[in-house]
Amino acid sequence: MEALKERIRKEGVNLGGGILKVDSFINHQVDPALMLAVGGALAAHFGAMGITKVLTAEISGIAPALTTALALGVPVVYGRKTKPITMPKNVYVATAPSHTKGQEVHLMVSPEFLTSKDKVLIIDDFLATGHTIMALISLAEQAGAEVVGVGAVIEKSFEGGRAMLEARGLRVRSLAVIKEMTDDEIIFAEGVSP
Amino acid sequence: MEALKERIRKEGVNLGGGILKVDSFINHQVDPALMLAVGGALAAHFGAMGITKVLTAEISGIAPALTTALALGVPVVYGRKTKPITMPKNVYVATAPSHTKGQEVHLMVSPEFLTSKDKVLIIDDFLATGHTIMALISLAEQAGAEVVGVGAVIEKSFEGGRAMLEARGLRVRSLAVIKEMTDDEIIFAEGVSP
Repeated sequence: MEALKERIRKEGVNLGGGILKVDSFINHQVDPALMLAVGGALAAHFGAMGITKVLTAEISGIAPALTTALALGVPVVYGRKTKPITMPKNVYVATAPSHTKGQEVHLMVSPEFLTSKDKVLIIDDFLATGHTIMALISLAEQAGAEVVGVGAVIEKSFEGGRAMLEARGLRVRSLAVIKEMTDDEIIFAEGVSP
Repeated sequence: MEALKERIRKEGVNLGGGILKVDSFINHQVDPALMLAVGGALAAHFGAMGITKVLTAEISGIAPALTTALALGVPVVYGRKTKPITMPKNVYVATAPSHTKGQEVHLMVSPEFLTSKDKVLIIDDFLATGHTIMALISLAEQAGAEVVGVGAVIEKSFEGGRAMLEARGLRVRSLAVIKEMTDDEIIFAEGVSP
């Protein structure tokens, strides 16, 4: 997605240690029009797969997952990291290390909203090590749902997440695939996810 | 907003203690089409006020704030409750008690994305005691930005938040105003926010 790559080139900041700061349009401030285009592109890729639900993780997955779900015409469920009192006692739980917060997070989904009848598309802002996405897959599997694919806004291919997902036979789509970040340049992989 | 009230009547659950569970379409599972309509309605109400930015709090404010910002054609910023390593050292911070989690939360916004040039519309899923919204107002004020209004998806008028905001001269709009929740009925105020 060229508009997204252009935005990353212009506003993305390489903070070192594999951390890409995209706080100005994805993670803290969000560009809604770009996010709508992101959702449209991800929905177009996975649209024919009979998806009944989009699953993501709070917090920064919510925006792209919402616009993808909007384009697909299905609900979106976001895995919660803390349990609000509105959540039932028994929930599905999966654990993932948090890349940008330096601790483990638990992701919870209520059995009310994910069942064995669901065909699930997993969406997140980043595909990096794939650990958050693996936790989302675990949540779907606990519910007996079928995961039909994984979509990410930005992929850091040098962190290996895609290989882990594709080894499970999952279809993976990222709208911008970064293969390398140097001190002064963000280099995209060409042709991986056109 | 009639479609919203209908949805609350049908799927909202009064958990007691003033807690309304709307996890099936707003807070955990989200209905994107309803959220798009919500954003359109809030944007239509505040559209003529020269808004440059929508401000909300993670987590459940993100969806309605994103769709409102989309309709207004401006960016949305969400106050963060934990500080990711992509955030600068010095940030604006405000504190609010969390109604549904039983603890205090800190909301943080980076000075990069909120400045004295901004005219801010504050959006949240609920207007209840108004404490979260007051924290968002504090963040905007720390940045020297002007708050031009407050929009909520659902208001619980019996918790008094509106009075506190209107006492500050703020324009307040909620799309569904609940005046009372009994054991078997959710009663909406008529005419307050038509």
